[in-house]
Amino acid sequence: MSVVYFANGAVFAFMGMLMVLDAILFPQTARDFGAAGLLAVVLGTSIAMASRSRAQHQFADIRRVHTFVLTATVWLSAAIAGGMPLAFWGMGWTDAFFESMSGITTTGSTVMVGLDQTPRGILLWRAVLQALGGIGFVVAGIALLPVMRVGGMQLFRTESSDKSDNELNSAARFATATLYVYLALIGVCAVVYAFGGMSPFDAIVHALTTLSTGGYSNYDASFGHFTSPFLQWAATFFMLLGSLPFAWYIAVLAKGRVRSEQVTAFLIGLVFVIALLTVWLVSSRQANLLDALRLVAFNVISVVSTTGYATADYTLWGPFAVTIFMAITAIGGCTGSTAGGVKVMRWLIFVRSLKAQIARVHSPHVVVSPHYEGKAIAPDVVDGIIFFFSAYFVTFAMLSMALGFVGLDFQTAVSGALTSLANVGPGVGAIIGPAGNFAPLPESAKNLLSFGMYLGRLELMTVFVLFAPAYWREI
Amino acid sequence: MSVVYFANGAVFAFMGMLMVLDAILFPQTARDFGAAGLLAVVLGTSIAMASRSRAQHQFADIRRVHTFVLTATVWLSAAIAGGMPLAFWGMGWTDAFFESMSGITTTGSTVMVGLDQTPRGILLWRAVLQALGGIGFVVAGIALLPVMRVGGMQLFRTESSDKSDNELNSAARFATATLYVYLALIGVCAVVYAFGGMSPFDAIVHALTTLSTGGYSNYDASFGHFTSPFLQWAATFFMLLGSLPFAWYIAVLAKGRVRSEQVTAFLIGLVFVIALLTVWLVSSRQANLLDALRLVAFNVISVVSTTGYATADYTLWGPFAVTIFMAITAIGGCTGSTAGGVKVMRWLIFVRSLKAQIARVHSPHVVVSPHYEGKAIAPDVVDGIIFFFSAYFVTFAMLSMALGFVGLDFQTAVSGALTSLANVGPGVGAIIGPAGNFAPLPESAKNLLSFGMYLGRLELMTVFVLFAPAYWREI
Repeated sequence: MSVVYFANGAVFAFMGMLMVLDAILFPQTARDFGAAGLLAVVLGTSIAMASRSRAQHQFADIRRVHTFVLTATVWLSAAIAGGMPLAFWGMGWTDAFFESMSGITTTGSTVMVGLDQTPRGILLWRAVLQALGGIGFVVAGIALLPVMRVGGMQLFRTESSDKSDNELNSAARFATATLYVYLALIGVCAVVYAFGGMSPFDAIVHALTTLSTGGYSNYDASFGHFTSPFLQWAATFFMLLGSLPFAWYIAVLAKGRVRSEQVTAFLIGLVFVIALLTVWLVSSRQANLLDALRLVAFNVISVVSTTGYATADYTLWGPFAVTIFMAITAIGGCTGSTAGGVKVMRWLIFVRSLKAQIARVHSPHVVVSPHYEGKAIAPDVVDGIIFFFSAYFVTFAMLSMALGFVGLDFQTAVSGALTSLANVGPGVGAIIGPAGNFAPLPESAKNLLSFGMYLGRLELMTVFVLFAPAYWREI
Repeated sequence: MSVVYFANGAVFAFMGMLMVLDAILFPQTARDFGAAGLLAVVLGTSIAMASRSRAQHQFADIRRVHTFVLTATVWLSAAIAGGMPLAFWGMGWTDAFFESMSGITTTGSTVMVGLDQTPRGILLWRAVLQALGGIGFVVAGIALLPVMRVGGMQLFRTESSDKSDNELNSAARFATATLYVYLALIGVCAVVYAFGGMSPFDAIVHALTTLSTGGYSNYDASFGHFTSPFLQWAATFFMLLGSLPFAWYIAVLAKGRVRSEQVTAFLIGLVFVIALLTVWLVSSRQANLLDALRLVAFNVISVVSTTGYATADYTLWGPFAVTIFMAITAIGGCTGSTAGGVKVMRWLIFVRSLKAQIARVHSPHVVVSPHYEGKAIAPDVVDGIIFFFSAYFVTFAMLSMALGFVGLDFQTAVSGALTSLANVGPGVGAIIGPAGNFAPLPESAKNLLSFGMYLGRLELMTVFVLFAPAYWREI
């Protein structure tokens, strides 16, 4: 367990240093970030130092069973550390923690109003949290979740592992390559945004929150603040890039291997949904075709990539649109990207496994094995995914109910539960819809939603495992 | 397939005869029921006769694969036949079919207003549909679903089958015993109702719709028409009996075997929920304890047993109550009863399997096998149940969306989808809540809900199988 203490200490110390950097860059909030940063650095360094010698000893034989508590606590520590400067700046702790958790999980739900007047030190910090959360999730998806066999992620074990080598080591090399791709994409995106007319600060902040599919913006009007069609198309393009698998980029760049079932399915689905909603918007609202296409493409990709930027209150487009937006919230992006949600790969395998199960029901003696990427899916992967589905929907139902308990109306409770679990950002309705804000919710609801974002980002099982007494006997 | 034609013909003929009986008993609607009945008898007899010789030939080797199309078409035929007299009486076909499907699936959602002035022939017919649907479902649960391995129902194969005998035959004997228990309970219930002050007609109709957990009443105020505490407690008791497994009654009567995990879990859960809501109602509304207990017990058991009688609009008790009622809608009664929903046994096994899966995730080399009724649950049962869960929630989500598509508001769409799939009856909200009615919904929504009730009653898989091309190649 010393490794776990060490890692959490390191997270606090690292984020403390980032806070100090923020303090140096922005004098207006220097005191808040400086104080929080020093506290985090001191706290983190002490913990790390205290556990260092024993941790060094243990690093060599870090076992699979440790990865759960490691992942779960590191994310929690990051959310706590991330909330500290916000609390020093004057936000209540519930709000600060919500905002930080929403950042580090790349959800993008916000309790802050008056963003246009908010100090830059705070705005950049929110974006940095999302950027950290985004790359953290991609790396976890490459290096940890497959080893942890969470939600069928063992499917990706062979892809990223080199037979002749230690699994974790080879994953680490792969993760480094991914980090470069991520940073390069953020850089290109920032340049494109600046070219399109954003201030350098806005360009950097929005590039960070676009590629991380987080969706924090510097403006109360979200990305709708930027009316330039060029900028909106650019954001649409880069949100899409953020929701494609990073391993796929590497496969394309390194080996020219373009074929990917989930990417194909995702893109075909997107084209279909965007075309459908565009036709509907043009015919029902007499909108201009190109404007409608831009509006629809932006908001659909924003939701399906779980970014959560908004350029329009699409929940006012009527029940047809609300229905579609709820549906794509439940689908999410590709596995191995920064996007949240159930994800395309799981839906593909779920549908194929369900077909196989139906065949098994009517013909029990026929062997049917569903395939993915040309290979038969191992039974434990199917189990992992089906349990993920069931657990996801039951958690969603329970979270909706808990939110009803604390007094939210039906629509806010249900869409809030879904948007937090899927790490999208906005819900449906007047309060938490794309034109709304999470600020007016009661504290208890904010805490529940923070927990929902945490569960969703860690793909449920990572957290559930910690509630099993047997797990703690293993460790 | 001749067996299938024969069975459907027989259903039409049998229901036609019941219509003729209804026509004889109630002169006011004699023409409608007579005409519909004759039509059904002629139609049914022709089909049955035409397929009889080949069916006789095939009866001996009716195969497992036939049971799916048999079950699915018989339920559909019953719903169509049941709607005929309502259509002759003057209802539009969508409404007549909805009302009949709601009856035969023991859902109890109604599109009829002015029940207090509705002719008795119609009222009795609705109750007869529910009584038929109730026993039909119990018999299917004993004789067919276990053989069909639908939703993990193969768990009940050994319980009802005698090793030395043909599975279907022994199940048929068991089903006969169940029918006697069912009819005896209806009889006792009717006597108790009459003793409590109901007119003989009301007592019979409500006994039929209580034990079938259907919930059609003769009054727009539903069971709330009867203000007598005795009657309300009696209904509470008999609804509870309707939602307990009928096989358990036989086990208790024949072998004195009282232990049943699902019955225990169900009753403990009920006591807990009723106590919780009663305390809340007493403290928040200053209600009298005994009145509150009666109100809560009645409405909780009405929903959890999927009967759907109402004595109060519990959706006005605030978000806390709405949340609990939505939750228990998703739970449902016991397997092997007339109740719908996911059912207690599946929830028990789901929770235990999820625990086992969590253990498998953190310790892949440890063998964990969840138990039920003292025995390890076979992997194919777990698969059946987990797929049922996933399919149930995905179907629920898709049905909610489809209802949103056709223009229903969020709350009506979501609660309507749930109440139809779980075969409960009332939803949540002003339109389809316990004080509302399904009449104002658009035709498309009524058709979707009819399909939802059908899917829910046939436990999804029975219908899904029919959409698999491979199934039709097998047959």
